[in-house]
Amino acid sequence: MPDAPFADPTTADLTAMDPTAMDPTTADPTTADLTTADLTTADLHGSLEDPALTSMNFLNEVTSRFPEALSFAPGRPVEHFFDLESVHHRLRTFSRHLAEERGLSDEEVRRTLCQYGRTKGIVHELVARHLARDHGLTVDPEAVVITVGCQEAMFLVLRALRASERDVLLSVSPMYVGLTGAARLVDLPVLPVAAGSAGIDLDDLTATIRAARAQGLRPRACYVMPDFANPSGLSIDLTQRRALLALAERESILLLEDNPYGVFHGGDGTPPTLKALDTTRRVVHLGSFAKTVLPGARVGYAVADQRVATADGGSGLFADQLSKIKSMVTVNTSPIAQAVVGGALLEHDFSLERANAREREIYRDNLDRVLAGLRSRFGGHPGITWSVPTGGFFVCVTVPFTVDDALLEHSARRHGVLWTPMSHFYSAAGGTNSLRLSVSSLTGPAIDDGLDRLAALFAEQGC
Amino acid sequence: MPDAPFADPTTADLTAMDPTAMDPTTADPTTADLTTADLTTADLHGSLEDPALTSMNFLNEVTSRFPEALSFAPGRPVEHFFDLESVHHRLRTFSRHLAEERGLSDEEVRRTLCQYGRTKGIVHELVARHLARDHGLTVDPEAVVITVGCQEAMFLVLRALRASERDVLLSVSPMYVGLTGAARLVDLPVLPVAAGSAGIDLDDLTATIRAARAQGLRPRACYVMPDFANPSGLSIDLTQRRALLALAERESILLLEDNPYGVFHGGDGTPPTLKALDTTRRVVHLGSFAKTVLPGARVGYAVADQRVATADGGSGLFADQLSKIKSMVTVNTSPIAQAVVGGALLEHDFSLERANAREREIYRDNLDRVLAGLRSRFGGHPGITWSVPTGGFFVCVTVPFTVDDALLEHSARRHGVLWTPMSHFYSAAGGTNSLRLSVSSLTGPAIDDGLDRLAALFAEQGC
Repeated sequence: MPDAPFADPTTADLTAMDPTAMDPTTADPTTADLTTADLTTADLHGSLEDPALTSMNFLNEVTSRFPEALSFAPGRPVEHFFDLESVHHRLRTFSRHLAEERGLSDEEVRRTLCQYGRTKGIVHELVARHLARDHGLTVDPEAVVITVGCQEAMFLVLRALRASERDVLLSVSPMYVGLTGAARLVDLPVLPVAAGSAGIDLDDLTATIRAARAQGLRPRACYVMPDFANPSGLSIDLTQRRALLALAERESILLLEDNPYGVFHGGDGTPPTLKALDTTRRVVHLGSFAKTVLPGARVGYAVADQRVATADGGSGLFADQLSKIKSMVTVNTSPIAQAVVGGALLEHDFSLERANAREREIYRDNLDRVLAGLRSRFGGHPGITWSVPTGGFFVCVTVPFTVDDALLEHSARRHGVLWTPMSHFYSAAGGTNSLRLSVSSLTGPAIDDGLDRLAALFAEQGC
Repeated sequence: MPDAPFADPTTADLTAMDPTAMDPTTADPTTADLTTADLTTADLHGSLEDPALTSMNFLNEVTSRFPEALSFAPGRPVEHFFDLESVHHRLRTFSRHLAEERGLSDEEVRRTLCQYGRTKGIVHELVARHLARDHGLTVDPEAVVITVGCQEAMFLVLRALRASERDVLLSVSPMYVGLTGAARLVDLPVLPVAAGSAGIDLDDLTATIRAARAQGLRPRACYVMPDFANPSGLSIDLTQRRALLALAERESILLLEDNPYGVFHGGDGTPPTLKALDTTRRVVHLGSFAKTVLPGARVGYAVADQRVATADGGSGLFADQLSKIKSMVTVNTSPIAQAVVGGALLEHDFSLERANAREREIYRDNLDRVLAGLRSRFGGHPGITWSVPTGGFFVCVTVPFTVDDALLEHSARRHGVLWTPMSHFYSAAGGTNSLRLSVSSLTGPAIDDGLDRLAALFAEQGC
């Protein structure tokens, strides 16, 4: 799943990233003739003034104003190995696959890549082989919907599940802003569930479900990132995974499992995914290729093998219902973008675990360096603690002073270091004493330099 | 805008298009163990049983069962000039543009194409130059949102405009199914407005707006395709365009102008777009590159220069509100897909009018041949009439017998010819005596053969 806030270089790294940033012709709408507004957000959908959508704008905006700051903010993958020739190569690999392994004629290959395409996608078979190879997951390729990034997969599932005002979603809190935002777009409230130390507090989940039902609400699903969650960094162990599945069965809810960081473990692997343990089709599995193949392809997927009874007495896969929604949102995912991902899967014999050996090592080294740096700077300080994940992108630091947007802005201006206030990951109050550090962006000595700047900020706050 | 029903080769041309069609491992979910369903559509969002979403499935399904039939159904562009090498070439052209004209370093070029990107897109400047070149349209590039096809642009605008249950949309009827479907996803009713002979009946539009207001509803916008509309083929002349803009101003509604077929005129050009005539920011202009560059890129855009006052007392462009929504739907449009479109714009000096000279000629020849074929077969028949558009993809034929899905299925099975029942383009009852023929798919003698088959069907129905 894409880490949209701060990962979005709309304005982050503006001078480097945005080819239009140098263009002088762009008018500043805020200073243009504004005698009357044409519209007001009060007349537009409520999501547009929702913290989930506005906080991302704020975070990007701060980042854009301080392009020179060292940044622990973005959840973007490392850029060391980006290579445009490999994009061309993967396109050719996938075309050859269509011709040689699928037996398509040249004309059919061209049509498959250039024409409107199958709504559920054209790399679903390859994704199924990847899931079998890397995650021990046997899925019907027809249950796979290829999407424009994991964000669209999330959106499609939430749109399908939100049938009435009674419906609510549950999510481990702190929670990914992209989830909250997508839920807000379909007017689906998200009830927070405590993470505890196990990654999810099952007692709290049960209590939250029952309390919601007592209020006449209908809990549909619980969103969870079992491996190295964004933003907490927490993972759920095998015992808790099994217990969570049993709870979902008992309480008749779905689990929406999002797994963008599982490949980036510390070396010891991860427990089986919820979907691999799911024997009763309780889990919709969401996936992203943004971190494992290429963010610029914007390809993700949902595995939705639930059986759905339709009004005409028929039945089909939940994937086909998601497909109907997708046909009205994006029609289909660019087959060219899909081919880039398909080519990568073919070139790596379907193992992104193997393909990401170098990246995994970089993230692990970065994580080690950040954790060591925190220890050497703040170890033993009574008021400063941090999570110690064994993989993934994120470390959370808790401090004895208030962490808010104003402090972030001050940190950027005065100390030249960026991070993310944890309050952005809470649907209600919360996170006002902690911040998220991403280990995917800075490497080597820049990490130490960044932590020195963070220490200067903390010192200024009395630590 | 993509012509999703029938244009979507989910199943259309299955053996040729879908590399998975040959795969025997795909289980048939309808015959699988179905002792209990996991979900029912009654518990899912209402759109999933809506005609707009289910009719597309039906149409695709019929097409898939009769792959050998001659098809006047799809709104897909001709495939004669699809060329994978040109995809590679355009990617390189755009990369070179970033380096040489924008001054980006190699690293910055790689990052622009491979990393998460600007939510509003990276080819907005090029799109603005194209709009100036081909449509005499001067737009602020910051008011352009690059989207995953025009379908996403439509979805974002409708999501933004639907604030409460009072909101309604207006659309010329018969109307594009992709519009109806997107509106349904955000629970936005669409009130039909008569097309009349002018492409839009302004008296009916005024009456519909006022009747809606009298019921306490809030008409937000009217969707219109001024050039060679899908499905009617009708165009709106300059006088009516000016009158429509005046009406929008008077009644305080927006106009959503969709323009997928304007480039495919018969040789005499088209009147200025509504957006080119718009002096008071009443028009949101929607565009697609699916017909003019490549369907497989899935790139479209919205021009949304309306000024929006925000709750914090600030203001900005409507494009930036759409961008906030997009960040929660697809995050950003694949920069690789955008680069393919950007490269094409650069290679053709920003004129898709010029780039599509060959395609325009093919569609015009096809249209002439279809119209001549209808004249020679049905000319003078008292009960059979048809529209005579001067461009675009679509001809509507009205007949003295009932045209429904059952007749389409019979036509495919018995006569080997496919077309689209017009009833699919009506939100309420309507279109039960007419059918849509697309001229974008069959060429030359295949058109005559297809019309012979259609004549056999008509004869069987007593004509």
